[in-house]
Amino acid sequence: MTETPTVGVALVGCGTVGSAVARGLLSDRDLLRGRSGLDLELRHLVDKDFSRARQIGVDKAICRKTLDEALGDADTQIVVELVGGDTFAKQCVEHSLRAGKSVVTANKALLAKHGAELFALARANGVCIAFEGSCLGGVPVIGSLLNGLIANNVEALVGIVNGTCNYILTNMSRHGADYRAVLREAQQTGLAEMDPTLDVSGGDSAHKLAILAALAFGRRVDLETITVEGIESLQVEDIRFGDELGYVVKLLAIASRQGEAISLRVHPAFIRRDHPLARVDGPFNAVCIYGHVVGHTMTYGRGAGGPATASAVVADIVDVALGNAQRRFEHLGVWPDLCEPAKVVPNDDIRSRYYLHVTCADSPDVLAQIAHVLGAHDIGIASVLQHEPLTPGSQAVPLVITTYEAAEGNLTGALKEIDALPVTKRRTFFIRIVDEHPEPQF
Amino acid sequence: MTETPTVGVALVGCGTVGSAVARGLLSDRDLLRGRSGLDLELRHLVDKDFSRARQIGVDKAICRKTLDEALGDADTQIVVELVGGDTFAKQCVEHSLRAGKSVVTANKALLAKHGAELFALARANGVCIAFEGSCLGGVPVIGSLLNGLIANNVEALVGIVNGTCNYILTNMSRHGADYRAVLREAQQTGLAEMDPTLDVSGGDSAHKLAILAALAFGRRVDLETITVEGIESLQVEDIRFGDELGYVVKLLAIASRQGEAISLRVHPAFIRRDHPLARVDGPFNAVCIYGHVVGHTMTYGRGAGGPATASAVVADIVDVALGNAQRRFEHLGVWPDLCEPAKVVPNDDIRSRYYLHVTCADSPDVLAQIAHVLGAHDIGIASVLQHEPLTPGSQAVPLVITTYEAAEGNLTGALKEIDALPVTKRRTFFIRIVDEHPEPQF
Repeated sequence: MTETPTVGVALVGCGTVGSAVARGLLSDRDLLRGRSGLDLELRHLVDKDFSRARQIGVDKAICRKTLDEALGDADTQIVVELVGGDTFAKQCVEHSLRAGKSVVTANKALLAKHGAELFALARANGVCIAFEGSCLGGVPVIGSLLNGLIANNVEALVGIVNGTCNYILTNMSRHGADYRAVLREAQQTGLAEMDPTLDVSGGDSAHKLAILAALAFGRRVDLETITVEGIESLQVEDIRFGDELGYVVKLLAIASRQGEAISLRVHPAFIRRDHPLARVDGPFNAVCIYGHVVGHTMTYGRGAGGPATASAVVADIVDVALGNAQRRFEHLGVWPDLCEPAKVVPNDDIRSRYYLHVTCADSPDVLAQIAHVLGAHDIGIASVLQHEPLTPGSQAVPLVITTYEAAEGNLTGALKEIDALPVTKRRTFFIRIVDEHPEPQF
Repeated sequence: MTETPTVGVALVGCGTVGSAVARGLLSDRDLLRGRSGLDLELRHLVDKDFSRARQIGVDKAICRKTLDEALGDADTQIVVELVGGDTFAKQCVEHSLRAGKSVVTANKALLAKHGAELFALARANGVCIAFEGSCLGGVPVIGSLLNGLIANNVEALVGIVNGTCNYILTNMSRHGADYRAVLREAQQTGLAEMDPTLDVSGGDSAHKLAILAALAFGRRVDLETITVEGIESLQVEDIRFGDELGYVVKLLAIASRQGEAISLRVHPAFIRRDHPLARVDGPFNAVCIYGHVVGHTMTYGRGAGGPATASAVVADIVDVALGNAQRRFEHLGVWPDLCEPAKVVPNDDIRSRYYLHVTCADSPDVLAQIAHVLGAHDIGIASVLQHEPLTPGSQAVPLVITTYEAAEGNLTGALKEIDALPVTKRRTFFIRIVDEHPEPQF
């Protein structure tokens, strides 16, 4: 082996992830030297508040209030941006790239919104951006897309990419508890933010999907083109009815090829109990990638949290320091700044199976009326499950129907008519059913 | 982007995997150029029989009977060895390395037996060996160990790494069919070899474990130090009893840290139904890696077959062509030729929980006698399940016991005594119970 080269690192932001990275670089320095063959030296820690930095033993001499010193330091090759958000973080990344520093970041919002622009800036300055930590914490899914699966035309990518939502849905399913109660408990244990909107609305999942889909399909993905639905309106009774039918509810992020176009969406979905994603529980995340050569694959692990994300960030530092990230950045053809924009399937044309929960009068011809409307919109019924009223004595009966694959536009039309029927007592609730992607025939 | 460089490839062996690689390089040439930014040119195909090569349209002009032409070709940078075995394949790899060509191989037996020697030879010649296809077909687990998880001290690696065994066990479990019947069916459908010994004995799993454990722990692993048991003696009734207790049987390859040493073993094991590996069914494979920072991870996919393995081989060609494999080979500290030999936990000291199936007389004090022996060997009983005789009227009753964790040496001693008791009617059968590795406390 050649002599161990030293790599200078500047760390911006010492919050949950930043402090885990700092701790790793300091306390695991020998371990990292042994495994990577590189001496990773933390030379600058930039933040406003250093209380956390002091707790983990960061030398006061490397604590800075601004980025300037790091950018002027010829011995610092890599800036690690862990500020979050897309205002100061964006400036920080831009200044670093312009100063000729490569950037490692875990900032999914920043890359989902401004990825193409920042990649182009990095390219113009002969440096690169590495971002394994931006999706699924420590799970090396970006590495898989850029390395081990590079020979594949990706047919579909389906993932559980938000730990907060998955924790909430797992607990609603396991304990029959309702959304508000589980959310409150998740907030108390720190698994949900005090303002959980970005997570439970599906927004955070959409950020990750924008990043992953771009690399998987080699297309520029505009965040605004992703159809997004959150988990806020899910009812315990639907989770229970789904369970009776053999389904588990998950918030899925989906990108799949439909002809020349790509269908991009985040929404709650029923998946069969034997689907590989069905047992991804609690705060865990996983992504299934379906390639034209490799077939089905899945990668799984902790999707968030300081240590797990730090694992990815430190791996990225090594990858950048070796020059490997740079070579991939120069050669591969999948980078958003070099690719055509994705042709996105319009919402009405996205095809799926559906679970429908119609609340209707307990009269003999109800099913015939509803079946007639569905048939008129070219939607075939796969199963029907009629339950006794949820409240004893109620005249409103839950009628659960699963359908064969149909276009979303047809479903919307059918539901409008069903909800207008005199026998229908409440707005019909639906959940998309996602079957496992078919494997290629080898 | 810079101009697309051309990379010359020589392919040795055109069998199941070789022909899938050749087909990929030829029919996906444009796709691969787009994704990798490299033009991968198949310049030599070396084999004795070209019938398969002709079927997939390989130009006659590049078919060769020997390696010589490829080695003398300055425009060929990479030799892909897909011959299998460790005689001609070894020569082929050695000649290629000495000729200054980097090698891509999917040959697990070769690397498990001669990895350290071949890596040293590559190093001496300034080239490298890439081998993602040697373990778990197209699943990028080696890439994960060398890239995304490099910041981790790996605590344990537990995998289902042989598709034939997993297919057999899945079908025994699902259909209650016995080993011989399922094996015969697997042979008929091509999922088991006509001579299945290497697979069902656990030998093939041991090869893969030797390769993966070396990279995970940064230690040289001698294949002979791995404790190996196959699936041939598993009985349907034990699978059924395990099911009653909430367990699924899998052939596991395990490497785990025990103090300063590593426990290395391949054996059938019961895992709980909610273990992430429990739903890895049929020909699928998966590996769980437990890191000190990242916590639990799993990677999953088709563990064998031409196309899946070709996905990994072509990815390796890209990785070598970019120079990234070479840089990892020069810098990382985990290569077997540079590492200390693993200190291996002696068999008797490996700790596990156990499932015991004692066949005993139907008399009142049997349980007391057996519990006494176990207690004397420091083995605690976790559960007892006594069934009626398997054959009605038989005096031999199956007594199923699960234990708390104990050293294997203690178990061996206890079983010797139990089997010598007058009440014991048949040799006691045991299966190790493997719980999921505890996650680090962050």
